[in-house]
Amino acid sequence: MTDTAAIIGGGVIGGGWAARFLLNGWNVRVFDPDPHAERKIGEVLANARLALPQLYDVAMPAEGALSFHPSIAEAVEGATWVQESVPERLDIKHGTYREILSHAERDALVGSSASGFKPSELQESVERPGPIMVAHPFNPVYLLPLVELVTTDANSKEDIERAEAILRGIGMAPLHLLNEIDAHIADRLLEAVWREALWLVRDDIATTEEIDDAIRYGFGLRWAQMGLFETYRIAGGEAGMKHFIAQFGPCLHWPWTKLTDVPELTDELIEKIASQSDKQSGALSIRQLERLRDENLIGIMRSLKDRDSAAGALINAHERQIARPLAGHDGEVAAPLCLWEATVLPSWIDYNGHMTEYRYLQVFGDTTDALLRMIGVNRDYVAGGHSYYTVESHLMHLGEAKLGDRLTTTTQILSSDEKRIHLFHTILAGEQSVATAEQMLLHVDNKESRACPALPDVSAAIAKITQKHAGMPRPDTAGRHTGQRRSA
Amino acid sequence: MTDTAAIIGGGVIGGGWAARFLLNGWNVRVFDPDPHAERKIGEVLANARLALPQLYDVAMPAEGALSFHPSIAEAVEGATWVQESVPERLDIKHGTYREILSHAERDALVGSSASGFKPSELQESVERPGPIMVAHPFNPVYLLPLVELVTTDANSKEDIERAEAILRGIGMAPLHLLNEIDAHIADRLLEAVWREALWLVRDDIATTEEIDDAIRYGFGLRWAQMGLFETYRIAGGEAGMKHFIAQFGPCLHWPWTKLTDVPELTDELIEKIASQSDKQSGALSIRQLERLRDENLIGIMRSLKDRDSAAGALINAHERQIARPLAGHDGEVAAPLCLWEATVLPSWIDYNGHMTEYRYLQVFGDTTDALLRMIGVNRDYVAGGHSYYTVESHLMHLGEAKLGDRLTTTTQILSSDEKRIHLFHTILAGEQSVATAEQMLLHVDNKESRACPALPDVSAAIAKITQKHAGMPRPDTAGRHTGQRRSA
Repeated sequence: MTDTAAIIGGGVIGGGWAARFLLNGWNVRVFDPDPHAERKIGEVLANARLALPQLYDVAMPAEGALSFHPSIAEAVEGATWVQESVPERLDIKHGTYREILSHAERDALVGSSASGFKPSELQESVERPGPIMVAHPFNPVYLLPLVELVTTDANSKEDIERAEAILRGIGMAPLHLLNEIDAHIADRLLEAVWREALWLVRDDIATTEEIDDAIRYGFGLRWAQMGLFETYRIAGGEAGMKHFIAQFGPCLHWPWTKLTDVPELTDELIEKIASQSDKQSGALSIRQLERLRDENLIGIMRSLKDRDSAAGALINAHERQIARPLAGHDGEVAAPLCLWEATVLPSWIDYNGHMTEYRYLQVFGDTTDALLRMIGVNRDYVAGGHSYYTVESHLMHLGEAKLGDRLTTTTQILSSDEKRIHLFHTILAGEQSVATAEQMLLHVDNKESRACPALPDVSAAIAKITQKHAGMPRPDTAGRHTGQRRSA
Repeated sequence: MTDTAAIIGGGVIGGGWAARFLLNGWNVRVFDPDPHAERKIGEVLANARLALPQLYDVAMPAEGALSFHPSIAEAVEGATWVQESVPERLDIKHGTYREILSHAERDALVGSSASGFKPSELQESVERPGPIMVAHPFNPVYLLPLVELVTTDANSKEDIERAEAILRGIGMAPLHLLNEIDAHIADRLLEAVWREALWLVRDDIATTEEIDDAIRYGFGLRWAQMGLFETYRIAGGEAGMKHFIAQFGPCLHWPWTKLTDVPELTDELIEKIASQSDKQSGALSIRQLERLRDENLIGIMRSLKDRDSAAGALINAHERQIARPLAGHDGEVAAPLCLWEATVLPSWIDYNGHMTEYRYLQVFGDTTDALLRMIGVNRDYVAGGHSYYTVESHLMHLGEAKLGDRLTTTTQILSSDEKRIHLFHTILAGEQSVATAEQMLLHVDNKESRACPALPDVSAAIAKITQKHAGMPRPDTAGRHTGQRRSA
């Protein structure tokens, strides 16, 4: 049976909740007195439909049904989960809970998006506080996994576990806080930065843009994958967290913190931090953590590079600065070309423990893309209505690539004409050939979807490489068909 | 001519600078009295060599020469840029500058990695302060682009511009601060978070791991691509920054900020923030900013997913939860077999707007897996030491699959024996064939990595299907090699 969620309050946050439940197969019933609520939720939902499925390599569940209701009483009908996202005023929240609890199913759970109130405050003046807990999400709710789940002794262990399972079921990461505190955790950290940033703007030390750049070109990239403590654990080096605190702890008493109260770094506090950090990250050496951090940073920055955004735009600008025309002179055209390298990632491994079949074609495809960029088939060329499509491939598997293997590729152009490129790629793990691909690419007019000659510069660039490769020996397996007996 | 940088002080930060200069083609001369300096820099350099080139789609410049020197006097010889990363003590820094300035070229620039001192403090007690400026980087220096460039009136406009050009030339993003302040910008923001985090740990509100998760599953993902103000601009919706501040400004006076001094939100300050934000982000509408944010978040999270790390590990866990096995097709033997169906997902689309090449092989591979399960090659069979590997494939692209297309596959067994399965798959979008794959599978002993006969039940199962398919017409393109002319 399809589960049902009631969304009470449908702004950006409520709309994000609605989208997350809907796209995970739940029916969603909305109450919001705002006459524009339906349009606003529709806009959030349109964004979410474009975005959330892109995170998954499997089909998401069939979308649930969305309905709008004129009262809380009607909206909560049959709901397993009620999410409250009404304005941050305690009297409004209390009235809302009383209405919800009078009409909801006895076992319905009520999550509050409140950032400004502790759950004990929300539970005050309600007869049956048991179902009410803080479930505080982050915008955009349909994409960011974090939800702070804050409970009190009034919440049963069973209800808390049920809440965690429901939140995980819609792809979120419930962070269960046992001790309530004003603003929970994340907003305390955000407020601290916001305060500091306001001073910097007010005192004309930096503009909003400079502050944003100071975040997104530096520690923001670190924090997308490791938080504060794991990052600093690495900075401390092999000596670990205690060393880091010993080194940087005194900064807390430097002038720039004069406005604030800071905890004393007693031996006990240092020991607490160090042992919690050991428990969190101790399974990996500093060297391993460094590699993990670097691989993640590379992945993040490359994904931004694909979009020419933030730090990725910086890399693209630098790349234009350092790029030398590979095919500029005959002398610079290698035979074969070495255009691509890649590391076998965890997600590339199949149940046999080897690199999955289609990932080989991914590496071959990336190599072809690099070749195309080299001969001038870039985004502008594609935007101008032309491209090369692969029409035919012959793949040979000669060995096995394993997790962490460093793969390189070589490329030989077998022949080309104004419309066709006939090429032969090899993937090597170290010195060993693990796979080959013989491919035929066809130059096409994107709009007409038919073959046509390449534009002159591209034609000239591929002709130059073809000429350079003309003297290379033809690979043994070129021209082979699948299942062909090996000749003696 | 190759440029030369001198690295004075070679810890994690100095080593990171050395690596960045070297990999961007500079010669690097190091002075560090630590007897382990050479090993330590070697370790940072090893990480950097693995990491930095992965950001680029072009070859980086040929690496410069690295040398170690017993004195500052010798290290700075011929250097255009001298980077000082000695311990954070003003007397040590001043002594270092005097030594540098007595021996360096007259036009050499001196960048300081200092986070704890303002440039005016660094320039004190030095006869010729002009070349000295703060160039404060972020760890890992070889990957993160941000460098805070802080100057005083003692630095000439020309030298500042030269410094910016040099830093951009090694792929960094110099953020030039006109007004010096203790700890510059980024470290002030970091210190604010660090203070708040120490309180949370000390008061047992959260562990180091919970705080890190609160960052990396939530706002850390946002800050990797947009900073504080641009993110909040979106949160304010169409009404913009003023609306956001009006809505959230009062929070600054809520109890959790009672320990700190906060700036008063005067009309003048609100106007300043709003107009700076307009200048920074006003070229895009809120709707466009939302799309940009979402696309970046997707890219970041997908890159983490590939590594099964941080938020990406959460998505993988959720994906396993929502993946549904297709209904089994055991028992009846169809001719051809219809074993698999899939929907073209948003993540399968390339820059041409079509399904990416390797995703076709993914669908063929999933179809082969379904065939193998059907004949009894399941996880137990694989765990028992046997499996089928694809050794050869021939792919034909006949049409284009687009976002949301429902794909089905058909499978014909061309022949089989005790070790081999020769098959022919077709992918259809609706009625239209969009791709075919002719494949040869070989039965192997996993442990010995060599071909061997399939176990009797599996042999019998594939033989039965082969017999059933014996009467089917052979596909036109079976046996074709890549680039073969179509027969008349």
